[in-house]
Amino acid sequence: MPDGYSPTPRAKIKRSHKRARYDKATVFEILDAAQMVHVGYAIDEQPYVTPTMHWRDGDTLYWHGSSASKMLRAVRTGIPACVTAAIFDGYVLARSPFHHSANYRTVMAFGRAQAVEGRQAKEDALYKFMEELWPGRWDACRENYTQEMKATCVVAMEIEEAAAKIRTGPPVDDEEDYANVKVWSGVVPALHKYGKPVADDRLDPDTPLPDYLSPYRGR
Amino acid sequence: MPDGYSPTPRAKIKRSHKRARYDKATVFEILDAAQMVHVGYAIDEQPYVTPTMHWRDGDTLYWHGSSASKMLRAVRTGIPACVTAAIFDGYVLARSPFHHSANYRTVMAFGRAQAVEGRQAKEDALYKFMEELWPGRWDACRENYTQEMKATCVVAMEIEEAAAKIRTGPPVDDEEDYANVKVWSGVVPALHKYGKPVADDRLDPDTPLPDYLSPYRGR
Repeated sequence: MPDGYSPTPRAKIKRSHKRARYDKATVFEILDAAQMVHVGYAIDEQPYVTPTMHWRDGDTLYWHGSSASKMLRAVRTGIPACVTAAIFDGYVLARSPFHHSANYRTVMAFGRAQAVEGRQAKEDALYKFMEELWPGRWDACRENYTQEMKATCVVAMEIEEAAAKIRTGPPVDDEEDYANVKVWSGVVPALHKYGKPVADDRLDPDTPLPDYLSPYRGR
Repeated sequence: MPDGYSPTPRAKIKRSHKRARYDKATVFEILDAAQMVHVGYAIDEQPYVTPTMHWRDGDTLYWHGSSASKMLRAVRTGIPACVTAAIFDGYVLARSPFHHSANYRTVMAFGRAQAVEGRQAKEDALYKFMEELWPGRWDACRENYTQEMKATCVVAMEIEEAAAKIRTGPPVDDEEDYANVKVWSGVVPALHKYGKPVADDRLDPDTPLPDYLSPYRGR
């Protein structure tokens, strides 16, 4: 495969394998479209799943938080991690209960995280996070204080392997069930939109809405 | 606490503990509002995080899938599981990079799953799942075939303990930063809506949209 992951049994999708994708273009597109990821890790055989915001640079996933975060303190030791992105795209209503389904785009990415060390490297990573969400915003904010950077942990996980799984389109019913005209069948699409930005009460009302937020306005 | 979980260190929220809730009313409300959950489990110290649809009956969470599913085959053995629901409610843009945040509602629920045994018990559980999404739809569909029920695994996890974490509202900046009028600050709300239902191409066009889908229409 041109530029993709060669999944070991850990990442290989067994069920509905026609929905599986291992190419990096698909994996990255879903990771970049997801508003957040869920980070899975285990301590003494107890699994934890922690939702967090994330960003990506090439084959590396990043996330961050408080230096005292239980999740970050665990994963930055380099224990195996599974980072899953899932976008729910709608309900699929079939003519039999069995063939009901959902449309979705998911990625499971496996690797081991490590802390990004050094103030400049941390600032660079956080800059990329914000710059991709809201270009130019970082430079408009005040600089980080030393204490703030000490209180912030950034981790990076090179993706060792990943699998995407995608379902789109209408229900797929058993042929004989299409004659059951009593049952409405089709898709109820789930939408991911943003409301109009709500200014902070303490914002000077003359402060203009920045260009990087205008795509969020009412769309 | 009247009707809530008494978290052990596993579920206790350490960071931003003012955002933590352990009462069942809050935990259940978030679980019921989430379109899906992420199921965390570990095999030989390798964590996995699998997104899936879910439903709830009292203190018990349910999810289902193929009897051959790797995730279901693992969790139904009763290994420790962590089921996380997360709803992203928007971006919080502060005047300093450090105080940027997100609004969200999350639940981490801990327990051990087991398979629901017996055809009737499985049917009852699946009925509840569909009936809560689309009242009356189950009875309009044809009945399940024996082979379909054999191919379906339903698992139930009594919630041993759970924690909710919620952030709402505007950014909270350092007092001295409120004077920085260069930076727009506030919240960009994320919306969770549904598009108009899309009928299957093979649906008889005279089939009416059922009442239980009309709330999804354009809202």
